[in-house]
Amino acid sequence: MRMYDIILKKRQGQELTAGEIKFFVDGYTGGNIPDYQAAALLMAIYFRGLSAGETAELTMAMCDSGERADLSAIPGIKVDKHSTGGVGDKATLVLVPMVAAAGVPVAKMSGRGLGHTGGTVDKLEAIPGFRVVMEPAAFINQVRRVGAAVVAQTGYLAPADKLLYALRDVTATVDSIPLIASSVMSKKIAAGADAIVLDVKVGSGAFMRGVEEAFNLARSMVEIGNRAGRRTVALITAMDQPLGYAVGNALEVAEAISTLKGHGPEDLLEICLELGAMMLLLAGKAGDVAEGRDKLVKLLESGRALEKFEEIVSAQSGDSRVTKEEGLLPAAKIKAEVVAPLAGYIQAIQAERIGRAAMLLGAGRERKESQIDLSAGLVLHKKVGEMVNAGEPLAVLHTNTQERLAEVINIVTSAYTIGNLKPEPRPLVYGTVPENI
Amino acid sequence: MRMYDIILKKRQGQELTAGEIKFFVDGYTGGNIPDYQAAALLMAIYFRGLSAGETAELTMAMCDSGERADLSAIPGIKVDKHSTGGVGDKATLVLVPMVAAAGVPVAKMSGRGLGHTGGTVDKLEAIPGFRVVMEPAAFINQVRRVGAAVVAQTGYLAPADKLLYALRDVTATVDSIPLIASSVMSKKIAAGADAIVLDVKVGSGAFMRGVEEAFNLARSMVEIGNRAGRRTVALITAMDQPLGYAVGNALEVAEAISTLKGHGPEDLLEICLELGAMMLLLAGKAGDVAEGRDKLVKLLESGRALEKFEEIVSAQSGDSRVTKEEGLLPAAKIKAEVVAPLAGYIQAIQAERIGRAAMLLGAGRERKESQIDLSAGLVLHKKVGEMVNAGEPLAVLHTNTQERLAEVINIVTSAYTIGNLKPEPRPLVYGTVPENI
Repeated sequence: MRMYDIILKKRQGQELTAGEIKFFVDGYTGGNIPDYQAAALLMAIYFRGLSAGETAELTMAMCDSGERADLSAIPGIKVDKHSTGGVGDKATLVLVPMVAAAGVPVAKMSGRGLGHTGGTVDKLEAIPGFRVVMEPAAFINQVRRVGAAVVAQTGYLAPADKLLYALRDVTATVDSIPLIASSVMSKKIAAGADAIVLDVKVGSGAFMRGVEEAFNLARSMVEIGNRAGRRTVALITAMDQPLGYAVGNALEVAEAISTLKGHGPEDLLEICLELGAMMLLLAGKAGDVAEGRDKLVKLLESGRALEKFEEIVSAQSGDSRVTKEEGLLPAAKIKAEVVAPLAGYIQAIQAERIGRAAMLLGAGRERKESQIDLSAGLVLHKKVGEMVNAGEPLAVLHTNTQERLAEVINIVTSAYTIGNLKPEPRPLVYGTVPENI
Repeated sequence: MRMYDIILKKRQGQELTAGEIKFFVDGYTGGNIPDYQAAALLMAIYFRGLSAGETAELTMAMCDSGERADLSAIPGIKVDKHSTGGVGDKATLVLVPMVAAAGVPVAKMSGRGLGHTGGTVDKLEAIPGFRVVMEPAAFINQVRRVGAAVVAQTGYLAPADKLLYALRDVTATVDSIPLIASSVMSKKIAAGADAIVLDVKVGSGAFMRGVEEAFNLARSMVEIGNRAGRRTVALITAMDQPLGYAVGNALEVAEAISTLKGHGPEDLLEICLELGAMMLLLAGKAGDVAEGRDKLVKLLESGRALEKFEEIVSAQSGDSRVTKEEGLLPAAKIKAEVVAPLAGYIQAIQAERIGRAAMLLGAGRERKESQIDLSAGLVLHKKVGEMVNAGEPLAVLHTNTQERLAEVINIVTSAYTIGNLKPEPRPLVYGTVPENI
C-alpha cells in the first residue's frame, strides 16, 4: 500500500477502505508517512468529504492509536457530555453535579480553552486548590465514591487525533465536518463512557455558523457513536449570543454556582435541563425527557445538586466554601463599563467578538502556550431582546491590565446591534438528532 | 503575510494576489514555508484552479527563483519548441536541424525521460561521443556558429519549479492544468527564447487524455507566454498511438535520421513540418504556414537539413558518421518478435503501454535514478489502419535482458486492438491555439 495512491483515490472522490484509512493513521502516528502527504490527503478530504463508513473508520483508527480509559470498575451506565464549544458555555459545571446527584456516574475528561472559546478545566482551576490532574485509579475511585470527577484530558487518549489536529490547524483543514466529527468522537470513545450526549453549538460564537451544517455535524457524530456501539444523542443549540451573562473563568464559576442555587440565567438553566434530561434518559434514570427535567429541577430546588458540586470540589482538593463565599474566587483589579451608544432593543450580540474581548482581557489563550488570568473576563448586563438606554451599561469588563482596554471596549460595543424594534425571540434548542438516524 | 491565510483563501476559491503568490514561491524555495503547507496549497489549487492572472504570476515567480539564460548575444529571433511528452516523440531531433537550416537560431535546453515518455537528451546520448553538458558561453557560441545547440537543462533555471514538481509528484497534485502550464512555461521563459512553439499531446500516451483538456492546457500556456511578452503558439496533436515506428533512444535517432533523409514515417514528418513551419513563422522566416512548409520540404530534399544535423553532432563532439553508418549506434543483443494473435485491421495502439514496454526493456527510467540502456526499445511494424495477418509481426523488441521479455510481449500484444473493419482515419493535428487568444 502506498500513501500516494490513497491521496489520489480520495482526490478522485473514491471511497477509501478501512485498511487504507488505518494505513494512513498508523503510518502518520508512527512517523512513516510525512506531513506533506498527510496535508495533501486532509485537503483532498476537505474537498471530497468522507462517507459515514470512512468517517467511522477514521475515528476508530485514531481511537486505536492510543489507550482507552477503562471505566468498567464504575457500576452503572456512564454518560459523557461534549460541547463543540461556545462563548460563556459553563454548562458542564452545572450538569456534572446535577446528573451525578440523580445517580448517573460521570467520569469526565475535559479540555482547556483556545482562542475565543473557554475550557472547563481552566474554569475549575479558578476554584482555589482545585486539582484537574489525577491518576487513573484515583479518578475511577472518585467517581465510585462521589459519583463524578472532572479531569484534564491527557495525551494518551487518541494521540493520532492530537497529531492530525495540529497539522490541520496549520494547513487550513480544520473546518471539515467529517474531520471535526472524527476528532471529537475518537476522544469520546477512547474516554470510555457507555453513552454520549453531544451539544452542537450553532451561531456567531460557534464553529458551525449555519443550522444545516450543525445538523450535518451532529448526524455525523451520532452515526459514529452508533457504529462504535455507544448510545449517542446530539442537541443542536444556539450560540448566536453568549450563554448566560458571564464570560471568563472565575466569573463563569460564580454564575454556575448561582445556577445550582436556582437563580441562574434562564438560557443556561434551560440548556442544562435539556442536556441533563437526555443524560438521565440514556443512563436509564428517566423514562422520557419530561421526567428527566422534573427530577433535575427537584435536585436544584432541594439543594442536592449544589451539595454534589461541593462534594466534587472537596474531593478534588478544592475549597468548597466558594459556594458560600464568592470572595474566595480570584477577582480582577480593574472593572470598566461598556455603555450603550444609543437607546433601543438589543437585536444581536456577536458571540465570537465577546469571546475575543474576554481573551484579550486575559481570560483566554491566543496560542496554546499563552498564560491565562483566571479572574479576567466580562459580565454582560444586556442580552438579546432586552431594552437599553443610551449611556446605560451593556457589559462590565474585569481585567488586571489597562493595556488593551480601549480596544476591548470597541470590540464589545461593536458586538452589540441596537435597534428600534423588539426582535422576534429565537430558539435556544434547534432540535435533536436521536440515537437511531 | 501568513501562509495559513494564503491556503485558506485559495481553499475558499478566492483569487490570490501577485504578492501572495510570490510570498509562497519565495518562501518555499527559501525553506521558510514547510512542505506540508505547500502540499495543502497545491491540493487546494488542484480543486479550485488558478485564474489566468494567478497562473502567470506563479509562472513568473518560479521563473524569477533562479537565473535566466541570456541569449542576447545570438542575433535573430530565437524560437524554442516544447512537447508535453509522448511515446516515440523524436520530433526535436528532426526539427532543430531543419529550422536551423532555414536560418532560425535554436538554443535548445531539453530534459531526460521519466516513466513511459522519453527525453531528447537521452536520445542524443545514443550518438557516440555526443555531449549534452556545455558551459553557457560555449552553448551560445555554438548557436552563433552552427545555428543550433541542444543541451541538458540544468537546475539553475526555475529551481522553485524543480522543488514544487518533486512535491507534486508525491502528493498526487501533478495533473492540474494551471500547475502543468506554469511548470512548463517557467522553464521556457527562463530559457530565454523570444518565441515558443508548444506541441500539446493528447491521447492514450499523453498526460492529457481528452482533447478539450489539451486545448485548455494549450490556451493556459499561450496566455502565460503572451503575458510574459513571448510570442507563443500551441499545436494540439495526437498521441493516441506512438509517433513514428521506433520507441527507444538509439532506435529513435535512426528514425530521425531517416526522416531527415526524406524517408521517415508520414506522421512524424507531418508533425515536424507543422511545428517547424510555425517556428519559421514566429521567427519571421516565412509569411505563412504554407510558405514555411515549402521551405522545410526543400531543405529536406536538398539534404541541407541532414547536413545541419551532422554539423550539430560534430559541434557537440558526436560522431557525425552515424547518418551514414547505422552500425555506429548502440544495438541490442536480443531481438524478439511480437506477433498478431489474429488477422484484421489495427484499430488502436495504446501508446502508454508501448512506452511502458520500452521502459521495461531498458529504454526508460522507472525512477529518476534508474540507469537506461540506450540500445533498448522496440520498433512497431504495424500502425493504426494497417492490415495484419495472424502470426505476422506487430513489433520487434530490442533488449539486452531476457528478464522481463515474456511480460513485455504480453504488454505489447495487449496494447494492440485488432478488428474486422478498417478504422476511420483520425486527425494528427487537432488544432492550433494562436498567439492572441
